[in-house]
Amino acid sequence: MEAEFVDWLRKRLSAHSNVELGLGDDAAILRWKDAANCVVTTDLLTDQVDFDLELHDPRRIGRKTLAVNLSDLAAMASRPVAAVISLALPRDGALRLAQELYEGLIPLAEEFDVAIAGGDTNCWQGPLAVSVTAIGAVTPHGALRRDGARPNDVLMVTGTFGGSLRGKQFDFTPRVREALDLNANYNIHAALDVSDGLSLDISRLAQESGCGACLDLDTIPVSQDAYELSASSPENLTPLERALSDGEDFELVLAVPSKEAERLLSDQALEVPITRIGVCTAQPGLTCIDHRGRTRSLAPRGFEH
Amino acid sequence: MEAEFVDWLRKRLSAHSNVELGLGDDAAILRWKDAANCVVTTDLLTDQVDFDLELHDPRRIGRKTLAVNLSDLAAMASRPVAAVISLALPRDGALRLAQELYEGLIPLAEEFDVAIAGGDTNCWQGPLAVSVTAIGAVTPHGALRRDGARPNDVLMVTGTFGGSLRGKQFDFTPRVREALDLNANYNIHAALDVSDGLSLDISRLAQESGCGACLDLDTIPVSQDAYELSASSPENLTPLERALSDGEDFELVLAVPSKEAERLLSDQALEVPITRIGVCTAQPGLTCIDHRGRTRSLAPRGFEH
Repeated sequence: MEAEFVDWLRKRLSAHSNVELGLGDDAAILRWKDAANCVVTTDLLTDQVDFDLELHDPRRIGRKTLAVNLSDLAAMASRPVAAVISLALPRDGALRLAQELYEGLIPLAEEFDVAIAGGDTNCWQGPLAVSVTAIGAVTPHGALRRDGARPNDVLMVTGTFGGSLRGKQFDFTPRVREALDLNANYNIHAALDVSDGLSLDISRLAQESGCGACLDLDTIPVSQDAYELSASSPENLTPLERALSDGEDFELVLAVPSKEAERLLSDQALEVPITRIGVCTAQPGLTCIDHRGRTRSLAPRGFEH
Repeated sequence: MEAEFVDWLRKRLSAHSNVELGLGDDAAILRWKDAANCVVTTDLLTDQVDFDLELHDPRRIGRKTLAVNLSDLAAMASRPVAAVISLALPRDGALRLAQELYEGLIPLAEEFDVAIAGGDTNCWQGPLAVSVTAIGAVTPHGALRRDGARPNDVLMVTGTFGGSLRGKQFDFTPRVREALDLNANYNIHAALDVSDGLSLDISRLAQESGCGACLDLDTIPVSQDAYELSASSPENLTPLERALSDGEDFELVLAVPSKEAERLLSDQALEVPITRIGVCTAQPGLTCIDHRGRTRSLAPRGFEH
């Protein structure tokens, strides 16, 4: 539903001089007279969709609500500044729950030097919903957007993919430091963070950039979690299929000019590995090279809101 | 519950150099290197608490979700810049509902030159919840806070109070223009917007400022809606009691040095009337002068979150 709604909304809203980059990316870039640019992003996480309050420790839930926003700031290569947090809490045990949520997110805020600047705390008859808005500063190196990829750019990713249900969906480290490092030291054309599924998110990056993407399936870094979940889960997805579609990996996808990509890959300057997984193509759409070396179309898969 | 929670949270959070003014006011003031100050505020409105989706037009609900945030920016005398909006929508008819909400808020955003900079749209099993975060710029005249009142300051209000259930709770005009005008032309010590109830919100302003407040009950501007609701409602509240406790008036309360207050009252430079309703006192707590001229204590009443 969200995609259809955002399509509608982009048409419905007029351009506004306060917004350098509005709907459609991981976060918005604001610019106004007498102020440096700041980046703002928001995510609303809800019970039974993004977490299960019966199953998951509220501290892990709280951490996740901030972490997904920091991951969006990372996708823009912006420096986290502050966050505001709104809670809609079931009435029974509301105070305790609110405290536990914050106990989970405060250490993450401290780790990334993010100010908790405010919020709104409410009780109601409904299930738990948590809305976090994070604000970041654009660095002198500028912000990374998802619409800057060009044909022949190399597609690279941090980390590994698939099986985030086994825990990474809560305990991931948002790639803020990595994004700031990469943006400061390399020429990067476009970036996003993988929240909905690697193939789906890459197809969005390509579409926003007016190009296509071809993934080399043999090079996709499949996580150990994807293997274990495939072995134990009844859903009959291969580990590679999980890596391409599970989502909530919160790793970065980067589109980098090919020479720069060589430099970046040989440097491997980050603590997390960076892997080349494909290229951008002039022809729109998503394709792949399979393990027999054949090029074929690839259906983008992932979580549709 | 919220008051207790915010008390806890203020102790729990360390001071942060990014935040000039954090929890406890209508909005936060952010300051960071190489950027002008910006103001950020957030409100989460939920079905059956802030509105009733069975009874109220989604356009009016949508308008309200932005308007309450603009009212918070007005309370800081900051210029609205942008807003991000997150929706948790019941699955049935979600797209239509989201569109109607935005159709209600877009005209208000246009009226106040606010960019809708982003958001997050979700469906779930729960009732409707709408989270709006608004960002404002601090003007050269600085931001108004709620903790700057001093004993002998005059307390003044815009507009009239009580009976907002009859419609003003949705259709109020946030006092953004008035606040910017007043802050540019007068020396104002403190301000807030009345969301929870006039007496409750004034007691908060006094408490944050380390002083008390004494209201002259004969001077409280009671709205026509308060009279009509008192006549028709079974709750047996007088119109004055409604003015003091109903809340959702979204008018400004100002604490102004007495000479400046005289000038402001004689100028009456705004379209909306400004009324003197009391003074700040050295003695903490809320008191009133009743219609027989007697000073007595007044219990703060309003909506406790």
